[in-house]
Amino acid sequence: MITTYHLANADGAHFSPHAWRTTMALAHKGLEHESRGVAFTEISTICDGERKIVPTIEDGERVLSDSWAIALHLEDSVTSGRSLFGGEKGKAHALFINNWASFGLQPLLLQIMILELFERLQDRDKVYFRESREKRFGRSLEDHAALADEARQRLPAMLSPLSMTLNSQTWLGGDVPSYADYIALGAFQWVRTSSSFDLPGFAGEKVSAWHDAMLDLHDCLARTNT
Amino acid sequence: MITTYHLANADGAHFSPHAWRTTMALAHKGLEHESRGVAFTEISTICDGERKIVPTIEDGERVLSDSWAIALHLEDSVTSGRSLFGGEKGKAHALFINNWASFGLQPLLLQIMILELFERLQDRDKVYFRESREKRFGRSLEDHAALADEARQRLPAMLSPLSMTLNSQTWLGGDVPSYADYIALGAFQWVRTSSSFDLPGFAGEKVSAWHDAMLDLHDCLARTNT
Repeated sequence: MITTYHLANADGAHFSPHAWRTTMALAHKGLEHESRGVAFTEISTICDGERKIVPTIEDGERVLSDSWAIALHLEDSVTSGRSLFGGEKGKAHALFINNWASFGLQPLLLQIMILELFERLQDRDKVYFRESREKRFGRSLEDHAALADEARQRLPAMLSPLSMTLNSQTWLGGDVPSYADYIALGAFQWVRTSSSFDLPGFAGEKVSAWHDAMLDLHDCLARTNT
Repeated sequence: MITTYHLANADGAHFSPHAWRTTMALAHKGLEHESRGVAFTEISTICDGERKIVPTIEDGERVLSDSWAIALHLEDSVTSGRSLFGGEKGKAHALFINNWASFGLQPLLLQIMILELFERLQDRDKVYFRESREKRFGRSLEDHAALADEARQRLPAMLSPLSMTLNSQTWLGGDVPSYADYIALGAFQWVRTSSSFDLPGFAGEKVSAWHDAMLDLHDCLARTNT
């Protein structure tokens, strides 16, 4: 049984976009796994006490952090069953999609929902979150949220590679889901568990249909929010 | 010998970002090919007289248009030598990158350089270009260009999947170039032949180094601008 450490908010929902990539990848590989929600301020107490981020997975004695590193490890070590990447170029191209989500899409989404996400945090995380994000952005959470309308205007162009690709194929992976689908789903799970923003509706019909199908995968794993 | 119909501007430079994808893909496959520059307003006269876009390639009797369709055709029909996609997932993920370039990145670049690009067109293309683009954008070329500063502010986030990926691997294709690299290069060739905007410099050191290496590929094919 592999344990994935995830972030849990005050509703008990697991909301880390990066940890959702890992949860779905474990299911894709057919591995027995469970997700354990912790607070931001608890991460330093899990496993060997040296962890700074989620996802962190614990597989017997082995502890591994960082969603991309975990995905590479799963693809190399679990050679039976379905592939996440479909070979070296599939993997190389998926890294582009990984970086699109992490550095292009997710910062816009955070700008749109940061105050709602903050309100839903566990109380013990609120001071940490406010201080660390205000330092990162160089402004208050409220000033960051004031740019939400601008972020919303920029969102269609940032979503266009997702929506246009889903006009031509069922999954980002083609005829079957690949790790690229789990990358994109992570961003949608983050929004769904942390805000009232209807991202699938905003992104259009094809993306909505894909999102529904993603929520149905692996016995509706992502619908549980945990 | 395969002929690729390209767009030529008043300098004689071939500037279609989509046709550059094809030119590089033909070289990647080791095929004998030449690029022939035409004006926008000449496209209807090439080959069978039914063509509306470049790239169009002519391979003996066979005529094929659209860069993505041509890439799929090359990958399927030229099975010797190097692969463009590295399998089905590599291809599916490359379509995401193709749509990122066409619908995310390139519209921003056009906003930045539209007046320069317009000035460099062949005279016979200017009325067509102005009318068709003003209709598409719902404003004059000059009003579109007035948004250049805004586009420049949005550009770093849109470029981030490219720049972050090149922080971890030499090519978008991984250890070797793939069609994904040719997709991205097309946008850079468009800017380089149509404007004074230093896109590689703007995009940072790793992208600049990749760009130099791209220009060196296949006997410096992209350096010729034709």
